[in-house]
Amino acid sequence: MSLSYESSGVRYDQLDAFKRACQQAARTTANELTSHGYAEPATTRGESCYLMEAGDHYLAHVEEGLGTKNLVADVVYAQTGKCFYREIAIDTVATIVNDLITCGARPISVAMHAAVGASEWFTDAVRMQALVDGWAEGCHRAGAVWGGGETPTLKGIVHPDAIVLAGSAVGKIVPKTQRITGDVQDGDAIIFLASTGVQTNGLSLCRLIAERLPQGYQTPIGHGDGRTYGEALLAASAIYVDFVVKCQQAGVKLNYVAHVTGHGWRKLMRLEEPFVYEITEPRPIPALFQFLMEAGPIDLREAYATFNMGVGFAAYVAPSAVEATLAAAKAAGHEAWVAGKVKKDGTRKAVVIPSLGLEYSGDTLQVR
Amino acid sequence: MSLSYESSGVRYDQLDAFKRACQQAARTTANELTSHGYAEPATTRGESCYLMEAGDHYLAHVEEGLGTKNLVADVVYAQTGKCFYREIAIDTVATIVNDLITCGARPISVAMHAAVGASEWFTDAVRMQALVDGWAEGCHRAGAVWGGGETPTLKGIVHPDAIVLAGSAVGKIVPKTQRITGDVQDGDAIIFLASTGVQTNGLSLCRLIAERLPQGYQTPIGHGDGRTYGEALLAASAIYVDFVVKCQQAGVKLNYVAHVTGHGWRKLMRLEEPFVYEITEPRPIPALFQFLMEAGPIDLREAYATFNMGVGFAAYVAPSAVEATLAAAKAAGHEAWVAGKVKKDGTRKAVVIPSLGLEYSGDTLQVR
Repeated sequence: MSLSYESSGVRYDQLDAFKRACQQAARTTANELTSHGYAEPATTRGESCYLMEAGDHYLAHVEEGLGTKNLVADVVYAQTGKCFYREIAIDTVATIVNDLITCGARPISVAMHAAVGASEWFTDAVRMQALVDGWAEGCHRAGAVWGGGETPTLKGIVHPDAIVLAGSAVGKIVPKTQRITGDVQDGDAIIFLASTGVQTNGLSLCRLIAERLPQGYQTPIGHGDGRTYGEALLAASAIYVDFVVKCQQAGVKLNYVAHVTGHGWRKLMRLEEPFVYEITEPRPIPALFQFLMEAGPIDLREAYATFNMGVGFAAYVAPSAVEATLAAAKAAGHEAWVAGKVKKDGTRKAVVIPSLGLEYSGDTLQVR
Repeated sequence: MSLSYESSGVRYDQLDAFKRACQQAARTTANELTSHGYAEPATTRGESCYLMEAGDHYLAHVEEGLGTKNLVADVVYAQTGKCFYREIAIDTVATIVNDLITCGARPISVAMHAAVGASEWFTDAVRMQALVDGWAEGCHRAGAVWGGGETPTLKGIVHPDAIVLAGSAVGKIVPKTQRITGDVQDGDAIIFLASTGVQTNGLSLCRLIAERLPQGYQTPIGHGDGRTYGEALLAASAIYVDFVVKCQQAGVKLNYVAHVTGHGWRKLMRLEEPFVYEITEPRPIPALFQFLMEAGPIDLREAYATFNMGVGFAAYVAPSAVEATLAAAKAAGHEAWVAGKVKKDGTRKAVVIPSLGLEYSGDTLQVR
């Protein structure tokens, strides 16, 4: 029987109910923007990044967290002595700024939130410095300043040997025309940008699988990839800010972009307006994901509904903009390709991958 | 023997070493601001809020956390059925926006970070809704929009029945002359604004004390105050944004302000330049703090070095601005009084409270 993401203890239904209650209450505060000279755009709630509109720019704000990926680094560090906290810090910055850039906002400042269960966490100088260096590197890659942070000790809330890694970013869209609005059209091309691995997505399930493997994170993943399971999981996430910035600089209009995180490829239909997203060129399943599917086992349907399956970012553009979009991705150092097409089919909302026999309908993604 | 804050497991020396490493690395990213049209003001690092300077405004960014106060609410809820998560949410917003306002930046957007150990946390609808309602109320009190947030499940990092509450704020200073720069002068008056209780400060020690009391949080605090220990601890924090805004609107120049949080009254000397802060009118010790000192026991020196002792915010103003400052505090609904005087004494840096026989030298506060 296939492992599911719920079997790893994450219940999106309970979380999503809370998120909806938050969004409802948050909407009642929109009038507070007036005295600051801002207004809330009608369509910003429920997107990956919160926008505030002024006369000549949008201000953007996002709060995001790494999730449980650092637990993998902890076990690998204990077993092999190899510290991946530089990668973990880059992951955390990536998950913050990649959300911000989905609306076209360039991150200006990124702040760190690092909560430990015991202040002894920081006495390991190697790990501590790796975390610091990685955060700075993530900021450089994102073109943002590291604007402070918070490092509390939360005894009784956080496990004594663990750390909660999260943070926030402030950004701007100038000029306002560079906002990515969700102006998707029937016939738009779907451009995929490669991920570096699981990035920050599905780690609870990955950890459950590690517990069941006799060699745990030391298991070779095979399929032509020489890395161990732990090494492959801990590859630092890609940061997609440079891709969007290069598109903006080249005048390429991105009709919509999706940061493929929780809910896997179902995130491709994050846009509220119903479309059918037909993926004809899914990336050949990378070794790490083949390994995960076999080790779980995880069936194909659950795998694409949970993991990014080698695709970290998707952009929807007019057919005439495909070449320039691919060139921008290449200039920013990302592997990218035309993966499929957006189709209008009345009120039908779905992600379909015919070559894999997969289809996810809109009601499998409840994030608003 | 007096209980100390370190006895509750919080080691500021280890935390502060990490903070310094962060600040050093963060400084290397300052050049990233250039492409966004911002620059880093020379004196912003180490302040409570990070500022970025543009031609006609400062952009402000802060990330802050509640600490362990919600653990008190959890025990009180289990014992009495009374839910204080509305207050806990206000506390969290308060600790974020009070830091922002210390540099004169009005918070525009506040984002929530609520990380649980198990998604079941959200199935208690009363507690969940109280948290949501309190966050919205905190935003209203701060004059800020609730700009989204993040609510991850962190199994294996956060205890299954606990929640990490934190968040971030984006703000602005317009016009730039309203920045609170630390332009303190010999002879400035020290204005104190009352706190509502411990606010978000020293809770690890408060919890340790509760564990040692036969009636725990149900212990009456006495000293003319009819509340239990738990009720008194869980009074929602004051939000001081309105005080600073009223000063700005009235043209009152605040030379410096201090948000009295970790390190207690030692925070009064947060400004880098050395001064002696002489407190001649400390607030008569409120019942809750008298109770804490007796129950610990905690001696006077440790108490003032750990708790706010009834004072949540301090403003340093020219003698000619005292009346207008007090009027602004009153208009914003805060109890305020002239508590003492700032004195220049060469390179000496200290907080002195002659009537209590207390003196803290500058080397007891290592936050830079």
